[in-house]
Amino acid sequence: MAHGGTARVGMIGGGQLARMTFQAAIPLDLSLQILAARPDDSAARVAATVSVGAPDSLEDLRAFAKGCDVVTFDHELVEPAHLEALVADGHCLRPAPASMRFAQDKHYQRACFEALGLPVPASRVVSAADDLLKFGEEHGWPVVAKVVRGGYDGRGVWILEAPEEAAELVGAATKMELLAEQWVRIRRELAILVARRPGGEAVVYPVVETVQRDGICHEIVAPAPVEDATAAAAAGLARRIADTVEACGILAVEFFLDEDGRLLVNELATRPHNSGHYSIEGCLTSQFQNHLRAVVDWPLGDPALVAAAAATANVLATTAGDPAMRMREALGVPGVHVHLYGKEARPGRKLGHVTALGDEPDDALERAKRAAAILAG
Amino acid sequence: MAHGGTARVGMIGGGQLARMTFQAAIPLDLSLQILAARPDDSAARVAATVSVGAPDSLEDLRAFAKGCDVVTFDHELVEPAHLEALVADGHCLRPAPASMRFAQDKHYQRACFEALGLPVPASRVVSAADDLLKFGEEHGWPVVAKVVRGGYDGRGVWILEAPEEAAELVGAATKMELLAEQWVRIRRELAILVARRPGGEAVVYPVVETVQRDGICHEIVAPAPVEDATAAAAAGLARRIADTVEACGILAVEFFLDEDGRLLVNELATRPHNSGHYSIEGCLTSQFQNHLRAVVDWPLGDPALVAAAAATANVLATTAGDPAMRMREALGVPGVHVHLYGKEARPGRKLGHVTALGDEPDDALERAKRAAAILAG
Repeated sequence: MAHGGTARVGMIGGGQLARMTFQAAIPLDLSLQILAARPDDSAARVAATVSVGAPDSLEDLRAFAKGCDVVTFDHELVEPAHLEALVADGHCLRPAPASMRFAQDKHYQRACFEALGLPVPASRVVSAADDLLKFGEEHGWPVVAKVVRGGYDGRGVWILEAPEEAAELVGAATKMELLAEQWVRIRRELAILVARRPGGEAVVYPVVETVQRDGICHEIVAPAPVEDATAAAAAGLARRIADTVEACGILAVEFFLDEDGRLLVNELATRPHNSGHYSIEGCLTSQFQNHLRAVVDWPLGDPALVAAAAATANVLATTAGDPAMRMREALGVPGVHVHLYGKEARPGRKLGHVTALGDEPDDALERAKRAAAILAG
Repeated sequence: MAHGGTARVGMIGGGQLARMTFQAAIPLDLSLQILAARPDDSAARVAATVSVGAPDSLEDLRAFAKGCDVVTFDHELVEPAHLEALVADGHCLRPAPASMRFAQDKHYQRACFEALGLPVPASRVVSAADDLLKFGEEHGWPVVAKVVRGGYDGRGVWILEAPEEAAELVGAATKMELLAEQWVRIRRELAILVARRPGGEAVVYPVVETVQRDGICHEIVAPAPVEDATAAAAAGLARRIADTVEACGILAVEFFLDEDGRLLVNELATRPHNSGHYSIEGCLTSQFQNHLRAVVDWPLGDPALVAAAAATANVLATTAGDPAMRMREALGVPGVHVHLYGKEARPGRKLGHVTALGDEPDDALERAKRAAAILAG
């Protein structure tokens, strides 16, 4: 329950990002209200103030926003028209719909960034197999095809090795708008968080390496094992992108570092991000706390690392067994910080993450992976 | 809501210790149920599962304990007979009533510790002014008089400068059982936390200095500015006391360091403690997380400091204004971690605390105090 000067921050979406944001809201005495799709959503299991409603129902969004001083997001899967309607109603949305569009619409993002000279892979919207084949002829195979809207965690992304696969995909996916994108020879994948206030004040987190398998982020290592110049370039690009999209709250920028050492923007998220969970224990101020501080326009906290290295391993269920049953064993691994999301286990589902700090990234990562493997079943 | 393997941990009391324990319970996926005296208690404002009931009502305690796998405590102000009744009902209480007695009954604690040769100030139960006067003649004035049960934060403690004050107090306090205690010439006050599992596994936190004014802890500095031998002696005593009282969860031991460099046990708490709030950001594992890990019998986390120094300043309201209104200003102080407890402001009331980390204790303390002073009004 809110009182006195306590701001009511609404978060649309009740997943683990909302759950961890809720934790961060408690010491700040911000009243975080959750709009969860289901009463057993990750954040809904723990938060005091939960509304159950559909993020694609304007009626539910309107009812929810009425009780909030500012509205923010656990995910970007809200209709842009609904966001605009909330703004027209007079609600304060942070980030604003115009910022979120950069994360929601990959074609729009690529087109804007190209126009501004920001480094992005070559891309084009395709609507027929011929377009895809032509793109492949120009840029070479493989070609990456992505849904323009709504993909995540490897869903809605296809790597087409040869022309015949292109024809197959376009045949199967006629109803989706697709973006064809140049396949990048990746040396590493990097990510960086920026927290930005409405007036433009921003802090930039350390650049991290993300280790993806099948499009799903499995591991994060901070700082990324890259040259200082690369880290500085990534930080500079992320800062510039934050201003370009007029981010408010956390902006996550994912980069490819290609085999020639060039940075290319891969994905954006205008909210706390899986690549930043290491910041809970690894940084002076977590991404969740800085997201909240930014959306209520408070001074931002220092994002510096508190240890030489921090590593996070995601807990991706391998069985349907409850990871809570394996906590005693997992916590036997020295110096691990376990975060379970309170989600029912299903093979492949992300149920939590483990962070470890250390003097050496390899040692921290080894411990985090060991505990995560125990929890995964 | 609990699910699958999630343990239901009940906490009796809904104050700020329960609020911070609740935060720590979320990543561990422990379902922390709060028995709050009032629906607007600090922890009740944020926790998903709150029962409202009186901690001195056996009926309320029984109804609450039924829904818990293990019961623990935000305070020790529960009737020992009620605790025994819950154990007789088959409930698992951690710490056990026998451990809590050391914190609840100062006479019992002093008598046991004296018998074991643990260093405590000389003391005696007094029931008449003559007894107090006699104690003063033997040990010199001033004499400290304490209620045997129920005192906290300077309440229930009197420093009697001379015989006439003793007569006055005993006249006014005839219904209370009093403990007369030798007044110690204090160089510093120190505190140390031990987290201990049911089987005896324990970890010892760094020794800290607590700065008290009018019996209320205002500041904490970790590590305490004492010689290594003193710190080691305090750690050894705390570890021995944890075994003596068969602590389960956090045990806080407060020491006097007297002008001759001797350590004397002052107070005990068998729960998370105000002197340990620095551990949330200052240690690899916070006192709240280790309390929970101990009471569900999971391996304990490393209590080592993550920085050279950590300091905490309590926010003691000087006005009735809501500190949430002053967050923007307070967070302008660099590198401060603010924790507000969501309590209505009243002059003198403890509304929160601020922790800062640093290379130098003085610098960390200065920043923590600056932000706390802003929040205090």
